[in-house]
Amino acid sequence: MKTEIPKPTLARLVKLSRLLEQIANTEGENAVISSTEIEKLTGWTRDTVRRDISFLNASCAKAGGYDVLLLKQTIQSRIAVQTGEAKCCLVGLGRLGEALINYGGFDGTAFSLVAGFDSSVNRTEILSAPFPLYTTTKMQAVIAAQNIEYAILAVPSSAAQSTAQKLAEYGIKGIVNFTPVVLSLPANIKIENVSVLDALQKLAAERAVLGEKK
Amino acid sequence: MKTEIPKPTLARLVKLSRLLEQIANTEGENAVISSTEIEKLTGWTRDTVRRDISFLNASCAKAGGYDVLLLKQTIQSRIAVQTGEAKCCLVGLGRLGEALINYGGFDGTAFSLVAGFDSSVNRTEILSAPFPLYTTTKMQAVIAAQNIEYAILAVPSSAAQSTAQKLAEYGIKGIVNFTPVVLSLPANIKIENVSVLDALQKLAAERAVLGEKK
Repeated sequence: MKTEIPKPTLARLVKLSRLLEQIANTEGENAVISSTEIEKLTGWTRDTVRRDISFLNASCAKAGGYDVLLLKQTIQSRIAVQTGEAKCCLVGLGRLGEALINYGGFDGTAFSLVAGFDSSVNRTEILSAPFPLYTTTKMQAVIAAQNIEYAILAVPSSAAQSTAQKLAEYGIKGIVNFTPVVLSLPANIKIENVSVLDALQKLAAERAVLGEKK
Repeated sequence: MKTEIPKPTLARLVKLSRLLEQIANTEGENAVISSTEIEKLTGWTRDTVRRDISFLNASCAKAGGYDVLLLKQTIQSRIAVQTGEAKCCLVGLGRLGEALINYGGFDGTAFSLVAGFDSSVNRTEILSAPFPLYTTTKMQAVIAAQNIEYAILAVPSSAAQSTAQKLAEYGIKGIVNFTPVVLSLPANIKIENVSVLDALQKLAAERAVLGEKK
């Protein structure tokens, strides 16, 4: 394994690769971006951007800045090398779960959505998905058989903690938590909370800190 | 306005208040939590927790730790004082937007969802919501009339940047971005990206940094 990239740098590179993808899509494959332009778009200082990119040990420089497409591909392959391919499952097939079934964003990434679970056989039969849907009773067997590493949790709040604990028992290594519940799990289980309220509170808190609001 | 709370502290207090809410719900109104327990649940050091809480300038101490309910209420009211009430709108009423319409998490928070927008009059007429739904053509007028500060962006990726720019023009101060598009907006418009892929990549990156995965 290459030198590990520090977590904050990885997090920024992940965002940067998505930004570069957008630019490549709009400006074409010959697009070039300077660290100053990246600073403008992201708010990270040029020095931070340059240092982050230096972790890639690859020259993506070009007259006027970085080769957008090359830099994007380098970041994604480097992150993929570091993280590897990973299978994910979707737990909870209510309205939100249904919306997530059709999330196309995984194409061309290191992640694949391979299974969905819901406690109601009704939902698993009504919904159509590009991957098999099972009742929750099959969760342990499917996660083990398919070696699923990550779970996207979209169950009702009342079931969030208990479901998360089961997922941890069944060997899930990380959970993307779409419920407003703050999950309490063993430290080796990573959690990323995805919450619209949390996001709004961060926006408001940020503005408050900036003194824009009383 | 009281002393401003630093952004990282505010962000942690926001999470802590949600954690305390969970504990209060399960353990009842007399629940007590120590900074050590908070450290276990959140991963923040006791010193960080104590320092964050000290910004509240209020004693929530009790034998054995903090009064969970009192601390939660103190944090929420303090954050509300700093951020104030805020109106939000939902932009994009596809599957995800439909799921978000029914997100109940705003009750008792400083935020209220007061309007929804979609380019298709079909969706605005078919869907039922606890707030009015309008076609996108009404966006500017409604945002101005209702003094809406935040937008939850759930439009297709192809429309994300152009819609975000309109929202910025119309006076929106912050956007919760549910699209995978990295938005490029003036620095005074705050953006919080909510992305399942981003969350998965953070989980994977975190594990990689921890050396759990090659």
